[in-house]
Amino acid sequence: MIKPLKVRKALKLSPFQLIVLLYLTGAVFSSFLLLIPIAHKPNADISFIDAVFVAVSALSVTGLSPVSTVDTFSTTGYFFIMLILQVGGVGIMTFSSMVWLLFGKRIGMRERQLIMADQNRTDLNGLVKLMREIFLLILIIEAVGAIILGIYFTQYYPTVSEAFLHGLFASISATTNGGFDITGASLIPYANDYFVQFINMILIILGAIGFPVLIEFKDFMTYRGSRKYGFSLFTKLTVTMYAILAIIGIAGIYLFERHSFLADKNWHESFFYAAFQSIASRSGGLTTMDLNDFSSPTLLLLSILMFIGASPSSVGGGLRTTTVAIAVLSVFTFARGKNTIKVFNREVHPIDMHRSFVVLVTGTFIWGMAIMFMSYLEPEIALLPIVYEVSSAFGTTGSSLGITSHLSTPAKMILIMLMFIGRVGLFSLLFLIRGKEIKEAYHYPRERILIG
Amino acid sequence: MIKPLKVRKALKLSPFQLIVLLYLTGAVFSSFLLLIPIAHKPNADISFIDAVFVAVSALSVTGLSPVSTVDTFSTTGYFFIMLILQVGGVGIMTFSSMVWLLFGKRIGMRERQLIMADQNRTDLNGLVKLMREIFLLILIIEAVGAIILGIYFTQYYPTVSEAFLHGLFASISATTNGGFDITGASLIPYANDYFVQFINMILIILGAIGFPVLIEFKDFMTYRGSRKYGFSLFTKLTVTMYAILAIIGIAGIYLFERHSFLADKNWHESFFYAAFQSIASRSGGLTTMDLNDFSSPTLLLLSILMFIGASPSSVGGGLRTTTVAIAVLSVFTFARGKNTIKVFNREVHPIDMHRSFVVLVTGTFIWGMAIMFMSYLEPEIALLPIVYEVSSAFGTTGSSLGITSHLSTPAKMILIMLMFIGRVGLFSLLFLIRGKEIKEAYHYPRERILIG
Ligand SMILES: [K+]
Ligand SMILES: [K+]
Repeated sequence: MIKPLKVRKALKLSPFQLIVLLYLTGAVFSSFLLLIPIAHKPNADISFIDAVFVAVSALSVTGLSPVSTVDTFSTTGYFFIMLILQVGGVGIMTFSSMVWLLFGKRIGMRERQLIMADQNRTDLNGLVKLMREIFLLILIIEAVGAIILGIYFTQYYPTVSEAFLHGLFASISATTNGGFDITGASLIPYANDYFVQFINMILIILGAIGFPVLIEFKDFMTYRGSRKYGFSLFTKLTVTMYAILAIIGIAGIYLFERHSFLADKNWHESFFYAAFQSIASRSGGLTTMDLNDFSSPTLLLLSILMFIGASPSSVGGGLRTTTVAIAVLSVFTFARGKNTIKVFNREVHPIDMHRSFVVLVTGTFIWGMAIMFMSYLEPEIALLPIVYEVSSAFGTTGSSLGITSHLSTPAKMILIMLMFIGRVGLFSLLFLIRGKEIKEAYHYPRERILIG
Repeated sequence: MIKPLKVRKALKLSPFQLIVLLYLTGAVFSSFLLLIPIAHKPNADISFIDAVFVAVSALSVTGLSPVSTVDTFSTTGYFFIMLILQVGGVGIMTFSSMVWLLFGKRIGMRERQLIMADQNRTDLNGLVKLMREIFLLILIIEAVGAIILGIYFTQYYPTVSEAFLHGLFASISATTNGGFDITGASLIPYANDYFVQFINMILIILGAIGFPVLIEFKDFMTYRGSRKYGFSLFTKLTVTMYAILAIIGIAGIYLFERHSFLADKNWHESFFYAAFQSIASRSGGLTTMDLNDFSSPTLLLLSILMFIGASPSSVGGGLRTTTVAIAVLSVFTFARGKNTIKVFNREVHPIDMHRSFVVLVTGTFIWGMAIMFMSYLEPEIALLPIVYEVSSAFGTTGSSLGITSHLSTPAKMILIMLMFIGRVGLFSLLFLIRGKEIKEAYHYPRERILIG
């Protein structure tokens, strides 16, 4: 077993550097796993860049793939992918959170409070317990999902073991928001099966809503105190934002598709198509239809939703819901003539506003650069599929208009970097390059300038 | 003559509302001017929506047009367009600045300081003088441009009066960054004439660099004091940003086009094509080539540059250079582990950071929504020309990939709104809806949340 404290001390790494190092090590390890011949179907061949691509895609729980999982990988390969999804979606996250909390003393109490978004849970004794709790919670969710889907799938597959393999893979892929499939066509085979879609949506939401939310909800369910249970600002904000984004997605898909894709569908078909694709755009990446059947405005809307991504401290990626929530609140605060963001009877710290600004600007810059250079590298591909693919990679969503397998190696490398950045999170990456927070020794005179 | 103080008092308008009202009145007036039959060529017909489009396009000094100026408008029409360009580019700007400064007492000293970006020039006596100075400066620049171009154009046109009509129109169109042309093909007829291009670039830059910069530069030239002349932070920041954006544009065009459009051009042809198109993307909108000959990444780069736009308090539009400069500085400040933006031996006020954040978020939102709804309204048009057109309208740049005349009326209305917003400036518009700045009477407990 790796002893993070020793490794960190020997290499003089900051907790943020350790987290990034962990992901990098995980990526190398996963690539090796997927290059082992036993992981492949007989006669199936996979190039080096494609193995790395699938490895990073699985580790970042994205789900983009230049090769067909079902045609390329053996059952052993399936288990490798499930393992990587598990490590990438839940393992490194909880492990790195623990590392952050345990050894992150240097960056101070303030940073440690961040991770759980609750000031009352940062005592060291409770931390290991908390991490075990998160890990266990996810395992239970996955197991319940696998059993329900496994039993249900017996009507779809000839043998019980095949049904349960599909159930297990589907449950892990949905809960970790991995987005991989072994049906060869995502959830399209279940396009008319609302039960399978419903279970998948629940699992996707549970994975992407944020671990602190799950823990607080569990606490809330078992809470027996006399006062009202107090959810943290983080939980209120991220759950609200999650719901708002889901509704915007559903309403937008309905608006843009009511005379085209949804024209010949009845209300419950329309609802499930809209709801599933909206929920999946948060980070799930599974789909119940060929996304090329959607029109341009819908695909742009989904691109924006994927770019925003999921909650921080979840299995998802992207800018993260809280970043965008703070941005929106900041605009409303300004419009109301106020300077401090007040929400849910709490005030948002000015530093968090500065941070969301930094994440938003950097994220949008990376997104724009990626689109520009992808269109330079792939002159034959139209702008829309590129925007969609880049947003999908950055949001670690993994749905695609089908261009992934046609990309050149440099374009694949751009996507690999985006998936990595999207998963590790811009904030952690920015802390990598950030110097130690220093008390400013001197001040210049302030001077006003014209804006906008 | 309108008496702004009386109008404002009678209607109980804030200075910001008055500015927007001025632009709206200007738009109605301009539309009427362009609908008068005397403004049209014999047999040329223009629809109501197209007249409004051209009127708003000229008033916002954008230059997008669904009709050909040369085929539709008579010489009288040309003069109407020049008048509207003048009023929109310089007139309303200086007039509204004056209104803001004279009657803007309610919004406080702080706001008034903003407009000139210099704390030493806000005494009321000096203001009217200052505004006259700006107006005069622009008129002199335009006159010099018109005379130089007029004389030079005698080699292009059969009569002296025709040469001077072209010189005058070109000079006003370039200085106000209007982007209209009466050649029928922008500056493409002068694609090999570096002298015409050079003069046009100078005029475009003088218009778009910001009026305070011009005034300070004039002061600097006539300054005879013993101490070093002190340029304002605004001037340093906006001139630096202008130069950086110009260089990024030139370098980007060269990188993306060196094996395609520039492949068969020698170094000075390449330089002038890159330089002109880069400078024009700030807000000028004129072009020396068919922009469809550029590849996708170049057009995306130009779209981003147009979206950013010109300096505040200039004839240009868009997000404005200072907004983006503060955003970039904010990221670097964060990366260095500091919390206050220090630049040119000055500290940027935290309120200006908040403002640039608000403008950036709102601007990007409007830009994204416009692209999405344009692609909904125009399913036949590909994403790239739509992105280009929307960026061009918001940045009041006015260059196009040629889709303007093919748009439906609702799509034209979106562009009309974008040109209007881009010109008035998001900040003024946001102040429209903003309540009176209130001292916060109460505070909630602060709570940290996870970002990005
Ligand atoms: K995914
Ligand atoms: K223009």
